[in-house]
Amino acid sequence: MAKEKMVEQITDMERDFAQWFTDICTKAELVDYSGVKGLFILRPYGYAIWENIMSALDKRFKETGHSNVSMPLLIPESLLQKEKDHVEGFAPECAWVTIGGSEELPEKLCIRPTSETLFCDHWSHIIQSWRDLPCLYNQWCSVLRWEKTTRPFLRGREFLWQEGHTIHQTAEEAEIETAQMLEIYAEICQDFLAMPVVKGEKTEKEKFAGAVNTYTVECMMHDKKALQSGTSHYFGDGFTKAFDISFSDKENKISYPHQTSWGMSTRVIGGLIMTHGDNNGLVLPPKIAPIQVIITPVAQHKPGVTEKAQEVLDALKAAGIKAKADFSDNSPGRKFAEWEMKGVPLRIELGPRDIESNSCIAARRDTAEKISLSLDDLASNVKKLLDDIQQSLFKAAKNNLDKHTFTAETPAQVKEIIEQHGGGFVKTMWCGDRACEDKMKEIAGVTSRCIPFEQEDLGALCPICNKPAKHMIVWGIAY
Amino acid sequence: MAKEKMVEQITDMERDFAQWFTDICTKAELVDYSGVKGLFILRPYGYAIWENIMSALDKRFKETGHSNVSMPLLIPESLLQKEKDHVEGFAPECAWVTIGGSEELPEKLCIRPTSETLFCDHWSHIIQSWRDLPCLYNQWCSVLRWEKTTRPFLRGREFLWQEGHTIHQTAEEAEIETAQMLEIYAEICQDFLAMPVVKGEKTEKEKFAGAVNTYTVECMMHDKKALQSGTSHYFGDGFTKAFDISFSDKENKISYPHQTSWGMSTRVIGGLIMTHGDNNGLVLPPKIAPIQVIITPVAQHKPGVTEKAQEVLDALKAAGIKAKADFSDNSPGRKFAEWEMKGVPLRIELGPRDIESNSCIAARRDTAEKISLSLDDLASNVKKLLDDIQQSLFKAAKNNLDKHTFTAETPAQVKEIIEQHGGGFVKTMWCGDRACEDKMKEIAGVTSRCIPFEQEDLGALCPICNKPAKHMIVWGIAY
Repeated sequence: MAKEKMVEQITDMERDFAQWFTDICTKAELVDYSGVKGLFILRPYGYAIWENIMSALDKRFKETGHSNVSMPLLIPESLLQKEKDHVEGFAPECAWVTIGGSEELPEKLCIRPTSETLFCDHWSHIIQSWRDLPCLYNQWCSVLRWEKTTRPFLRGREFLWQEGHTIHQTAEEAEIETAQMLEIYAEICQDFLAMPVVKGEKTEKEKFAGAVNTYTVECMMHDKKALQSGTSHYFGDGFTKAFDISFSDKENKISYPHQTSWGMSTRVIGGLIMTHGDNNGLVLPPKIAPIQVIITPVAQHKPGVTEKAQEVLDALKAAGIKAKADFSDNSPGRKFAEWEMKGVPLRIELGPRDIESNSCIAARRDTAEKISLSLDDLASNVKKLLDDIQQSLFKAAKNNLDKHTFTAETPAQVKEIIEQHGGGFVKTMWCGDRACEDKMKEIAGVTSRCIPFEQEDLGALCPICNKPAKHMIVWGIAY
Repeated sequence: MAKEKMVEQITDMERDFAQWFTDICTKAELVDYSGVKGLFILRPYGYAIWENIMSALDKRFKETGHSNVSMPLLIPESLLQKEKDHVEGFAPECAWVTIGGSEELPEKLCIRPTSETLFCDHWSHIIQSWRDLPCLYNQWCSVLRWEKTTRPFLRGREFLWQEGHTIHQTAEEAEIETAQMLEIYAEICQDFLAMPVVKGEKTEKEKFAGAVNTYTVECMMHDKKALQSGTSHYFGDGFTKAFDISFSDKENKISYPHQTSWGMSTRVIGGLIMTHGDNNGLVLPPKIAPIQVIITPVAQHKPGVTEKAQEVLDALKAAGIKAKADFSDNSPGRKFAEWEMKGVPLRIELGPRDIESNSCIAARRDTAEKISLSLDDLASNVKKLLDDIQQSLFKAAKNNLDKHTFTAETPAQVKEIIEQHGGGFVKTMWCGDRACEDKMKEIAGVTSRCIPFEQEDLGALCPICNKPAKHMIVWGIAY
């Protein structure tokens, strides 16, 4: 018999957060590295998390009237160049196809880094009248951005995402769409991923290349750094003019339609790890966990144990709980460690003595608490526990966010707070000028995360230039 | 008010089948052409058909123990070259990335034409012991093959598909897997797409590059040509040896595992069009139709019509029927033509007189038959009609297959049959030699479709060389 594999220790998160993160990515079997830097393999367990996120998002997209489509993988150079700001933002990080079959291509083709130009090209073919609007489209795909430094989930040269693209008769309709999709991202982050968000608008400097406005949900990770977790862009008619997409309205007047796009990616799996994980591995919120309950039989060679475990498994599954039993011949210690590493929210231990007393032990992944549960009514009690775990994880993350959100009155204070906590969100007033944003980065090493929708009045002046302030802004260190 | 668009006529299928096919692709709003030859846009209606196919397949893959994963888009040239037959088959039609960011890459990377090499590379990292086997994986993605001539669905330089890849301890296990997945493809073709299949094995000449055996489901299109609709490959240990993937078995002996792959693509949507379509457009089998029933109110400005149509819509939806109502201000004639073009299996017409008599008219897309139905019990009668349409479409396609399947005793007879019918499946005996296969192509212009699992004894000799025959084989003209 081959020796059982040991679950390897991971790096302590307090000692080296970055190494702890990549340890979880590989040891929880979420990803593997491929032969090309920055292109990662999503293994079954990692992809199953993404499937759950996809399914929650896709349901909401369809409920709000969106249809999925599939756009081409490749963009001709001339098409990418049609919108000036957009090409400036993306061209430097494109991967280019120059050979097809065995021939040099007459025009090089970039692998999509995002698909605004492809959607616009298509819309220029199909939109003539107000009857053709709105188009509410989404696509599930991967995109490529040739980054210099790469990390699983957080910064890949290839990553999976959805990109929604819509086009409307009026600016107002498009603005409503942009806000609606940001709300869906906020809901997914908070209610599914148990990641509290700060919602707001990006500054001119930080917005998407070619957008009029970019809206964002920003989350705080365990190391107090910020993760931009979903963005929604309003484009006005900049692209539609560049691509000559026009329509005749009900009065036969020709107008340019208004456009949006919005995206969420596998990056949020990185967010899950860095929000809830601990030194034993991943910790998954029940709503997004591929396995919500792992049943580990104890002394499973004893008569009746396997059968009872199977019975419990069937009962939990019948109640709609994503349960699995580990009937492998690994030791209980090995099993515990493996499923802890994988972040399964609840473990049920079941041995001969438990069976005798018609009970089992439920061990919470988040608190390590062990609770004795009767085998009668098990499913409903397990459901209650899973709900409680979901809420507890959100509360803990919200605590972290609240505890590390500060206000400051000078750039020096911002710097001090950030240095003291190794991160954090710092709110200040701001005049709205790019120069002050750059200055803050220079002094305190932070970037603007967003201008929150929930504004507070922290004073009348911009603490950087002392001119009248326009907004309250949030600063932080971002992934 | 902008003038309503007319539904344009499509080319007569008897006059020009190829043009009729592309007319349906665009006029039924399945696809649009992009700026790159051979890369097509799947529009909402086309993609919705693919989503239904994906969902039927994915359910079966999961029921049979498979997990989805995501492999990288790009394959380094050196990795593609590891298996000799494989690279010979695919290298000539690869698209190559040579520039990343603004730098020339040290090694060119091809966009995956298929992912055997990527799966093997990954497996070489994670497989050590019998405990790590089998791996039963699948991925949903697009692949690129730089074809010279291209057509929507049938031959794209990019197409969407699923590619399953599995690796097993023994040859026997892998062979069972290969057969199981072919059965799933046959079931999807026959029971969902209403496309009868001929199941069999590919010849050495026609098999997948690098495979030991390739199994196929072959369908006959309306024009009597063949469409290879799904394939399942057994690789033996050829790749695992080339990639040095080995495992220690329960007795600690080192062995090479055995491998399979299997795929079905958006090509089958081309199959749906060419199996069931007619001169009014697409005809969709109810099980795969994004919209099963279209309700078209007649004289909808009259009081009560819209309300009743909405009521009927709600009742059908509540019964699990994919129904939609067309409340647009288009004329009934325009509505009828549009939904016929899109192949909706059943149209329900509902006007003031129908409402008065508590009934409606149900018009079948397949037979154009009109049936009066009571509004009581409507959902259950609609379900029966949809079942009947599903079966009728299968029967009609089976009729076409049976009527155009022939046996022949000489290559000259094969040629004559094929010329007379412009296609058809012709069965003959065959010695198994490549030379005779080539000769048959030269004489009769056909390729071997498969060696059917259901063998018949048509004689003792190969009709090409007159040596002893090994199998009965099926010849045809393939897409």
